[in-house]
Amino acid sequence: MAILDRTDDGAIARLTLNSPGNLNALSDAMLAALKSEFVRLSEDRGIRVVTLSGTGKAFCAGHDLKEMQAARQSEDNGRAYFADLFSRCTEVMTAIRDLPQPVIAAPHGIATAAGCQLVASCDMAVAAHGTRFGVNGVNIGLFCSTPMVALSRNIPRKQAFEMLTTGQFIETDRAQELGLINRAVPMEDLEAETMALAETVAAKLGSAVRIGKRAFYEQLELGINAAYAHTGAVMVENMLDRDTDEGINAFLAKRPPDWQQ
Amino acid sequence: MAILDRTDDGAIARLTLNSPGNLNALSDAMLAALKSEFVRLSEDRGIRVVTLSGTGKAFCAGHDLKEMQAARQSEDNGRAYFADLFSRCTEVMTAIRDLPQPVIAAPHGIATAAGCQLVASCDMAVAAHGTRFGVNGVNIGLFCSTPMVALSRNIPRKQAFEMLTTGQFIETDRAQELGLINRAVPMEDLEAETMALAETVAAKLGSAVRIGKRAFYEQLELGINAAYAHTGAVMVENMLDRDTDEGINAFLAKRPPDWQQ
Amino acid sequence: MAILDRTDDGAIARLTLNSPGNLNALSDAMLAALKSEFVRLSEDRGIRVVTLSGTGKAFCAGHDLKEMQAARQSEDNGRAYFADLFSRCTEVMTAIRDLPQPVIAAPHGIATAAGCQLVASCDMAVAAHGTRFGVNGVNIGLFCSTPMVALSRNIPRKQAFEMLTTGQFIETDRAQELGLINRAVPMEDLEAETMALAETVAAKLGSAVRIGKRAFYEQLELGINAAYAHTGAVMVENMLDRDTDEGINAFLAKRPPDWQQ
Repeated sequence: MAILDRTDDGAIARLTLNSPGNLNALSDAMLAALKSEFVRLSEDRGIRVVTLSGTGKAFCAGHDLKEMQAARQSEDNGRAYFADLFSRCTEVMTAIRDLPQPVIAAPHGIATAAGCQLVASCDMAVAAHGTRFGVNGVNIGLFCSTPMVALSRNIPRKQAFEMLTTGQFIETDRAQELGLINRAVPMEDLEAETMALAETVAAKLGSAVRIGKRAFYEQLELGINAAYAHTGAVMVENMLDRDTDEGINAFLAKRPPDWQQ
Repeated sequence: MAILDRTDDGAIARLTLNSPGNLNALSDAMLAALKSEFVRLSEDRGIRVVTLSGTGKAFCAGHDLKEMQAARQSEDNGRAYFADLFSRCTEVMTAIRDLPQPVIAAPHGIATAAGCQLVASCDMAVAAHGTRFGVNGVNIGLFCSTPMVALSRNIPRKQAFEMLTTGQFIETDRAQELGLINRAVPMEDLEAETMALAETVAAKLGSAVRIGKRAFYEQLELGINAAYAHTGAVMVENMLDRDTDEGINAFLAKRPPDWQQ
Repeated sequence: MAILDRTDDGAIARLTLNSPGNLNALSDAMLAALKSEFVRLSEDRGIRVVTLSGTGKAFCAGHDLKEMQAARQSEDNGRAYFADLFSRCTEVMTAIRDLPQPVIAAPHGIATAAGCQLVASCDMAVAAHGTRFGVNGVNIGLFCSTPMVALSRNIPRKQAFEMLTTGQFIETDRAQELGLINRAVPMEDLEAETMALAETVAAKLGSAVRIGKRAFYEQLELGINAAYAHTGAVMVENMLDRDTDEGINAFLAKRPPDWQQ
């Protein structure tokens, strides 16, 4: 299995971080693999939903610290490498938002620093009971400044601030209360529950989910009036989709839709 | 009773969606009735609070799908009608925010798609136990893009995304946890509890509530510094209101205020 | 003890509102004392965390209404005074955000109007069980328009709207659920628990917490892409800090860091 495994199951692409030796750290190699796969997925109309999980003891423990420290040997003490690294990491995180397919994180074990950011950056998350989430870079003197961009858009601000400045972990019950994950399930059910959610979404009209996901993130960054102007136009295009016409007719006739897509 | 009933009870206007045959759908007629009534209410200084409920089995099941499908017969396949429809619907939703009076939704049964948006667009909501909320247009191929504008400003984003892409319902306990409603009460108490909340607000100084509601939504869309500059100016005007002077004097003297309004 | 007491305990500055006779109201004198102290703290590199509590029966009951009413005697009925007052109050609230050190509120008793705003404006809050929070100015005809700027950035909007228009209090359980406080503890443990949290944060690398706090509030007001561009640059500077280099090396070597700061 490669550093990032992809197994397709019908319209669902299952990505698995596979570098258990470093707790699936977001090394240069892992970031490159994720970026490439997201580029491929963005053009793959056969895939309707993506899931993201990890092998070994942890979902993802964040950046690869050894690799980062090695970069200090360069003449600029690593400045150019670090700037490039955080830029590549941000590309991966925002690529999840920009993918046409919904992405479901399925963390287990630990999800820390950029690993916690990865969960926060996915559209939805189903976690194994006992998963520990933290933005604990502060413990080693590296405040989780980029992870907090995603985290603070998932959970309330005082709770985000506490996680960021204490470095303490929260477990799944608290993560669910705060909004970081959609729900928690027993570890032995993680794969089945994640796939069940993925299949529910994959069964919807793909074109509708695609324009909806895109509009979701666009409108979140607009004032309400601009958000309505934008989504109103999206609704018109959605209505003019041949399959939407069929979907509504089928509903009114109480029969299953016959979608072409 | 008309398609939209209005019964005034002192300073409280009680609006009731009354089209049980189509689950109080937001048909052209219903949207027009709501718009007209909101225009009248916006100029009615005798009304301090508005409540919104529905007759029959459901609060509101969203748009009128039959009417929408009929519009496809036109030469442009309905494009102009759909654009106009979503524009009129948005006018109704934002009119609630722009009304000088607080508006309390009192949903029961189901509140789906634009019906769920209607709840999210009200300033507060008291729901009957067992009410089911959903933005389930995705089930028929029509992603709830405009409803999500209101929904995603009420509840956290992963939870909104799940509702939008799975089409699944949430019930009142979950709706309260997430912030979509203020509380749930037994169906037999819904009217009394909604009126009790309305009366609590109606007993406040009308001018203060009016400027406060307006400032509330204005400041939400500003950065913090701009929000403070704006609301600071609002506080000054509020202080210079003769009735506020009286209200503070009465409080300091431990007597009820003698308000002119 | 002065109207605002400051007692330093190692790297922790403990501020105590000390005007129990008027429930620690934010009088002209109190606002001036807070502003001066925040200016001093902003330049005090020996202090890493600030706590804020109150003596007497209440944490803070908001503005000093007697002082405000007296200002009406001036020729302009107080307009200039009120404008200046809300401006000075806003300076104090935003100074908390702008302080380089995290500020932890430790309310007990009551925290109302601008007193509730003070809690909402702090980075974190630990409250004594039974503390009552309210933005109840509406009860006397003075809508809490400036407090709502802070409150509505802590808790969901329907719940904020209800507090603002009903004037009703919430207690600690509800305040925690909504996100207004981080947690509640028995009154007899309030000081110890607040100090424990302060010490946890004070033990981190000061420079990392400082740049992290600043970046936290900056990125909250940006769109996601701009937020990532900004925090990516912050991470690079953080990595180039000599103490961060040491922190990471110590972590990789499983030894405590030897920080110079």
